[in-house]
Amino acid sequence: MASLKLHGLGFSPSTARALAVLHEKGIEYELCPVNFATRAHKQQPYLSLNPFGQVPALEDGDLTLFESRAITRYLASKYKETGADLLRSDDLAEAAMVGVWIEVEIHHFNPAIAPLVSELLRKPKLMKMEPDEAVVEKQAAELEKVLDVYEARLSESKYLAGDFFSLADLHHLPHTYCLLQSSKASLVTSRPHVKAWWDDISSRPAWVKTAEGMKFWKAAA
Amino acid sequence: MASLKLHGLGFSPSTARALAVLHEKGIEYELCPVNFATRAHKQQPYLSLNPFGQVPALEDGDLTLFESRAITRYLASKYKETGADLLRSDDLAEAAMVGVWIEVEIHHFNPAIAPLVSELLRKPKLMKMEPDEAVVEKQAAELEKVLDVYEARLSESKYLAGDFFSLADLHHLPHTYCLLQSSKASLVTSRPHVKAWWDDISSRPAWVKTAEGMKFWKAAA
Repeated sequence: MASLKLHGLGFSPSTARALAVLHEKGIEYELCPVNFATRAHKQQPYLSLNPFGQVPALEDGDLTLFESRAITRYLASKYKETGADLLRSDDLAEAAMVGVWIEVEIHHFNPAIAPLVSELLRKPKLMKMEPDEAVVEKQAAELEKVLDVYEARLSESKYLAGDFFSLADLHHLPHTYCLLQSSKASLVTSRPHVKAWWDDISSRPAWVKTAEGMKFWKAAA
Repeated sequence: MASLKLHGLGFSPSTARALAVLHEKGIEYELCPVNFATRAHKQQPYLSLNPFGQVPALEDGDLTLFESRAITRYLASKYKETGADLLRSDDLAEAAMVGVWIEVEIHHFNPAIAPLVSELLRKPKLMKMEPDEAVVEKQAAELEKVLDVYEARLSESKYLAGDFFSLADLHHLPHTYCLLQSSKASLVTSRPHVKAWWDDISSRPAWVKTAEGMKFWKAAA
């Protein structure tokens, strides 16, 4: 049995963020499903793993962590020597740029794309509801502005933090994957540098493996 | 002249987050004011420092960084040996817990407190407008829930990530300082462990110095 337990669900974008690092590093793990139908994540014993009642949570021996981006940083740091160093921690300037674009994903990209994906995929597929078109258009307009900055950035460097794949790129994978299954895929595909970046990062074997768990969101599913 | 330039304004909570680390580490810097009245932050040359047009931005030689929490991580890492190691990077488990509570501030605390402080202080003081009471009550209720988790956490450890002051605590200083100047100060002062934590972290000389630049928000100002 793997000593490392990830609590979550493979099709959850936040869980997938952590899984993508586990797969990048080839780390053995056990995925422990959380029953959303019974709201297990909002009750004990799950709340002892994460008092905010969200997935994922990670147990590594005595250590319990939550917040997907804290889990990815921890794994990238612990397994720095295995595969690519996703934090570039040996170079202060490179590590700083990884940090900048990790924050950009959190404060600009995610607030635009997460509600958009929720309307376009989560509502119809999980709640059998129609998307709210006003929310869709508002969020799509927000995402356009963010992706215009990305297009400029990615015309200067191959990846967000520089000419190396990093945790900053990886953090974008789950929600962008979802967006690509929706009617707003062109927000990505119409921007040449953003599209080239997406084609590159999404074809990494670790992400291909992670995406297998996200097939629920596929357009034809 | 200091080689390190921080672009921003001392009373801006995000700028203060970076200043607090500069003061913790005793780093020489030059604060370069950004003229919000002329919307200088939304134009060149500022946009070449931060394409999203927000403060702060940091220039350290050839390196330009933005996003306050990326700047704090960079400074904490570069000046790790000066004063307290705010990232606890020599201990994988401690560093992981710092990472968890840095994310909690971003995803739970900040989304609750920032709009609350905006209604209670920014609107009346900067825009000569009355707070929207519905927003105030909604955000205060959100913050109550978050601070209940903090109260439980801080009954187990002196600081958020453990029994050591870290960047996770520091990131909370600017908005909590603002809240304490408002009619909702009791959200903090009514919770014994949260109040003891606040009294401790806000009495650090580095924060006392940073808060001098935030007097604009003082209740009696």
